[in-house]
Amino acid sequence: MTQTPPTAAVLIIGDEVLSGRTQDTNLNTIARFLAALGVDLIEARTVGDRKAQIVDNLNALRAAHDYVFTTGGIGPTHDDITADAVASAFGVALPEHPDALAILERRYGAGEFNAARRRMARIPEGGTLIANPVTDAPGFQIGNVFVMAGVPKIMTAMLEDVAHRLRHGAVVHARTVRVTGVGEGDIADLLTAAARANRELSFGSYPFGAGTEGEVGTNLVVRGRDEAAAEAAVESLMADLAAEGIAAVRV
Amino acid sequence: MTQTPPTAAVLIIGDEVLSGRTQDTNLNTIARFLAALGVDLIEARTVGDRKAQIVDNLNALRAAHDYVFTTGGIGPTHDDITADAVASAFGVALPEHPDALAILERRYGAGEFNAARRRMARIPEGGTLIANPVTDAPGFQIGNVFVMAGVPKIMTAMLEDVAHRLRHGAVVHARTVRVTGVGEGDIADLLTAAARANRELSFGSYPFGAGTEGEVGTNLVVRGRDEAAAEAAVESLMADLAAEGIAAVRV
Repeated sequence: MTQTPPTAAVLIIGDEVLSGRTQDTNLNTIARFLAALGVDLIEARTVGDRKAQIVDNLNALRAAHDYVFTTGGIGPTHDDITADAVASAFGVALPEHPDALAILERRYGAGEFNAARRRMARIPEGGTLIANPVTDAPGFQIGNVFVMAGVPKIMTAMLEDVAHRLRHGAVVHARTVRVTGVGEGDIADLLTAAARANRELSFGSYPFGAGTEGEVGTNLVVRGRDEAAAEAAVESLMADLAAEGIAAVRV
Repeated sequence: MTQTPPTAAVLIIGDEVLSGRTQDTNLNTIARFLAALGVDLIEARTVGDRKAQIVDNLNALRAAHDYVFTTGGIGPTHDDITADAVASAFGVALPEHPDALAILERRYGAGEFNAARRRMARIPEGGTLIANPVTDAPGFQIGNVFVMAGVPKIMTAMLEDVAHRLRHGAVVHARTVRVTGVGEGDIADLLTAAARANRELSFGSYPFGAGTEGEVGTNLVVRGRDEAAAEAAVESLMADLAAEGIAAVRV
């Protein structure tokens, strides 16, 4: 009997994502990070820089999942309200954290360490720091919630100080078969049969080339924690495709 | 007295986004589309190809907002369950829609129009079709929910048949000031004062260049439905920055 894999959710915080000004890439970075650790990412939400909205969504997600990862809203300006919202969600105070204060003082020196930057030393009571090797201002963990920066380069670096805090699950193995010359609808029956025969695996179908002059086809993705079963299913799929005279290669 | 602008939510459906296999771009496309129409995008959620999860989230979002836009899960394969989930969420049947059937028969011809492709003609009762000029298989609208394809090229094309169905709001105007040579923390006080003096506008601060060899700075974004007020606030900000000897240009 294998242990149930841990589950996770992501909460993207930022008006700039909802206004269309910014194309978020943090969700994809976190998704790939979690996949490599065998943690199941179940859902993600994007909200604005609004305290009540952050609090409500964070409380829903942290009750439903083993881990929640937030990005955005921990800088020095007035629209950076994530720490305030997280403290409210947990019902705790938001004092200056001595280690965070020391890190920021060292970073900025006396001349540049103004009140705005000092706001970044406020960490919800009970929280522990997440190292930021890029610009020093730390993220933090409180309970099962990991609060990280919104700038992708900083967020990605912070994950290095997050991985060791997570319970890892059995990794999900993925195999891709690239089918060309036919549409998704031509291999749907075959794929449905494969999915029915292998309930422990997931079968995805991702068409490409629609509406273009280029090659049309579909990427079939078989995913599962049992690598041998995934491998066997792919071999079986390849044989079925060959029997129908459909071009397919493993990629 | 101006009318309250319509609100919207986006529901991204697809295991491939949560597994990290795919970088979603549809949220950003829809966000920019709605901004241009003056519709306020309030939140977005990403869920897997799981019927109960789609139903629960769709019902929460459609009750809370004027419009909901979904992407993904309307193709011909077994993992395309969005139409089934939407029908369940609305408590209606999922019959074949005669117009959808005609479109698909014309597209595929007798030889290629198999049972899997015929699934794409099923539209929740009461739904109207959304045209797909790329690959023909239509999306649909039911109530305040717009169900679109996941392939970005197709999703984008479908928006052409969505715009005329929406109540438009007063457009939000955005102005950006690019500040260089100082960090976000150096202009935080100035920005806070501007935000307090202009409650009807939003002020965002987006640092760039952190952790790189290149130029460091912050983009300040002023947004509001009153264009003259946004313009006046930017002029005031520029004057304040100049008074402190901080380099800033409008971009």
